[in-house]
Amino acid sequence: MSPDTPVFLAACRREPVPYTPIWIMRQAGRYLPEYRAVRERVSFETLTRTPELAAQVTLQPLRRFPLDAAILFSDIMTPLQGMGIDLTFEPGPVVREPIRTAAAIEALRPLVPERDVPFVLDSIRLIRAAAPRHVPLIGFAGAPFTLFCYLVGGRPSKEFESARAFLYAEPEAAGRLLDQLADAMGAYLAAQAAAGAQALMLFESWGGLLAPAQFEPFALRAARRTLAVLRGCGVPLIYYLNQGSALLGQLAPIEADVIGLDWRSPLGTARRVLGPDKAVQGNLDPAALFAPPAALAAAAGQVLLEAGGAPGHIFNLGHGIWPHTDPDAVARLVDVVHERSQRPGAGG
Amino acid sequence: MSPDTPVFLAACRREPVPYTPIWIMRQAGRYLPEYRAVRERVSFETLTRTPELAAQVTLQPLRRFPLDAAILFSDIMTPLQGMGIDLTFEPGPVVREPIRTAAAIEALRPLVPERDVPFVLDSIRLIRAAAPRHVPLIGFAGAPFTLFCYLVGGRPSKEFESARAFLYAEPEAAGRLLDQLADAMGAYLAAQAAAGAQALMLFESWGGLLAPAQFEPFALRAARRTLAVLRGCGVPLIYYLNQGSALLGQLAPIEADVIGLDWRSPLGTARRVLGPDKAVQGNLDPAALFAPPAALAAAAGQVLLEAGGAPGHIFNLGHGIWPHTDPDAVARLVDVVHERSQRPGAGG
Repeated sequence: MSPDTPVFLAACRREPVPYTPIWIMRQAGRYLPEYRAVRERVSFETLTRTPELAAQVTLQPLRRFPLDAAILFSDIMTPLQGMGIDLTFEPGPVVREPIRTAAAIEALRPLVPERDVPFVLDSIRLIRAAAPRHVPLIGFAGAPFTLFCYLVGGRPSKEFESARAFLYAEPEAAGRLLDQLADAMGAYLAAQAAAGAQALMLFESWGGLLAPAQFEPFALRAARRTLAVLRGCGVPLIYYLNQGSALLGQLAPIEADVIGLDWRSPLGTARRVLGPDKAVQGNLDPAALFAPPAALAAAAGQVLLEAGGAPGHIFNLGHGIWPHTDPDAVARLVDVVHERSQRPGAGG
Repeated sequence: MSPDTPVFLAACRREPVPYTPIWIMRQAGRYLPEYRAVRERVSFETLTRTPELAAQVTLQPLRRFPLDAAILFSDIMTPLQGMGIDLTFEPGPVVREPIRTAAAIEALRPLVPERDVPFVLDSIRLIRAAAPRHVPLIGFAGAPFTLFCYLVGGRPSKEFESARAFLYAEPEAAGRLLDQLADAMGAYLAAQAAAGAQALMLFESWGGLLAPAQFEPFALRAARRTLAVLRGCGVPLIYYLNQGSALLGQLAPIEADVIGLDWRSPLGTARRVLGPDKAVQGNLDPAALFAPPAALAAAAGQVLLEAGGAPGHIFNLGHGIWPHTDPDAVARLVDVVHERSQRPGAGG
C-alpha cells in the first residue's frame, strides 16, 4: 500500500497492511457515557438530524480508542423519512402506515438526498473536516430488503413475519418496492460518497431471515441493484449480512469489495466460499467483550487466526456492540487486535 | 418397515416408507379457531396444566389434517416451574428472579417428574388413549441452553445478551447450570417416554445464537448430556436446532436419530454434512404458507427434492407455524407432501 493510504482502505482492497485494522459496529453509541450524556439532552431523531451533534458523537469513540475507521452516526431508517414515510423511533422504528398495497408502493417518492436528507450530507462534511486523516469515514445505508422488513412490518419484530409472508403472497409488488428502495439507497449512498464518505456499507440485518430460494430473487437482487449504482464512486463497498451462514455461497458474485459477517460464520469457511476477490469484515461475538481480559484476547486471536492473516481482513464485531459493554473492554480489544496482527515488513 | 410401524417412526429410523410423513411445529395452536376457542376460556398456563384440556388441543389438528404425528401440547418452560422457578407467561415466559449467581444455581432443585409435573405425564396418557394408532405422539423438552437463555435473561429477547455474556463472564457457573438443566430434561423426557411418548424431541431454539466455539462446550455438550440419558428409552430422539446453519458440522456425533433444521439450511447440504446415520426433519419456510396454492406446492416440492427422496426425511416447517396462517393452507400442504412423495413400492 502507499504510505498515504489509510490501513482500513488498503485492507478493503486486499492490499498488504502493517496490521489488521479494526472498527466496531455501533462504536458511537450507548455503551459510551459521553454518548449517553448527549442523548440526555436531545432525542435520537434530533441527534441524527443535527450535523454538529451527529459529527460530535461520530468522533467520540475515536478520542478513546485508536480505531481505524469512523462510521457516520445515523440510522438506516433516516432516509425513508425523506421519501414520505411517516415514522417515529419508540425507540425502534415504527412506521405509522405500513406499506402493503400497490397504491402505497406507488405513492413513495424517489429520494433526492440533497433535498430530502441534507443534514446527513452536512454531517459527513463536518466529520471529514474534523476526523484524523488516517481514519477514513464510512457512510452507510440499510439494504433494501432490511428496510422492506420495517416498511411492511411497521415495527421491529423478531421474525418479520408480515414482510416475509408478503414476499410469498405478492412477489411482484414486493419486487417493485424493493426496486424503489434499491434505487433510493443507491442515490443516498452516492450522495454520501460525493459529500466525502470514503467507504460505503450496506447493512443487510434481516436478509438472513430468508430461505436461500427467497434471498437471491429478493434481498440479493435488490442489494446488487444498489451496489451497481455505486461502482463508479471509487470507494470500497461493504455488504454486511447478518444470520447469513447458509447464504454465503450466493454472495460470491456480489459487487462488493468486502463482505461483513456475523459471529456465527467462521471467517476461514467464508473466505473459501467467497473466493479471493472479496475482503471479509468481522466477526467477534459481541458477547466476548464480557469475558475476562485473557479470554477476550484469546477470542480475538481466534478470529485473526480464522481470517488467515492474509490481506483483506478488517476486524469488527459480528454484530453491533451491546449497550452494556464496558468501554475498557473495547480499549483492550483494539489494542490486542493491533498487537497480535503486527506484520512489521508489510505495507507502509 | 413392518406394516404395523407408523410411517413417522419408520422415517425417524431411516427405514423405507410409502410416503414422506409430515407434522408441523406448533400444529396445535393459535392458527386454529378451535384452539382459540379453548384459550378464550382458560389461560395458557391452565391449559398446559390440565390434562384433559392439553389432550384436547393436542388432538385438534389431527381432526382436521391427516398428520403423521402428534406433539404434546405444553411449553418448554413448564418443567422449570417444577424445579422451583417462579415464572409467569406474559405471554412469553418471564422469570421473576433471573438466575445469575452460584447461589441461585445451587438452589435449583432436581426435577422429579412424577412429583413436579404429574399433569404432563397424565396428558400423555390421555392423548395416547385417544389418538389414532398410526399417529405417534412426540414428547418434548427445551434443550438446556435454550432454557438457560430464559433463566439467565429473565424474559424473551431477540439476542439473549445476558445469557450469552454469562457464558463468557462465568463459564464454570454457566456449565453447572447447564448440567443441572441437562439432567432435569433427561429425567423429564425419560418420564414422558415411560408415560407413553413414542418419540422425544429437544428444542434448541437459541443455540444457533452462539458462535461455533461457544456452541460446542455449552449448548451441544449439555444437549448430549440429556440425550445420553435417553438412549435406553427405545424411542427415536430428535434434536431441533434453529439458526444452526454454521453449526451443522458439529452435530454429526450427536446421539439423536433425527436432526430438525430451520428453513435456512438446505436439506441436501445438511444430509451431506450430517452423514447417512441421521434422519432430517424440516424445513419449509413458515412464510410459504402465505403463498398461493401453486407456489406453496412448488416450495414444498423443493423441500422434498432437497431431501433427496431417500429414507430418513420427515417433512415439517423450519420453525413453528405462525399464528395468522390460514388452516386451509395447512390442509393443502399436508396433501401435497403426501401426494408428491408417494413411493408405491416402498414400505408397508
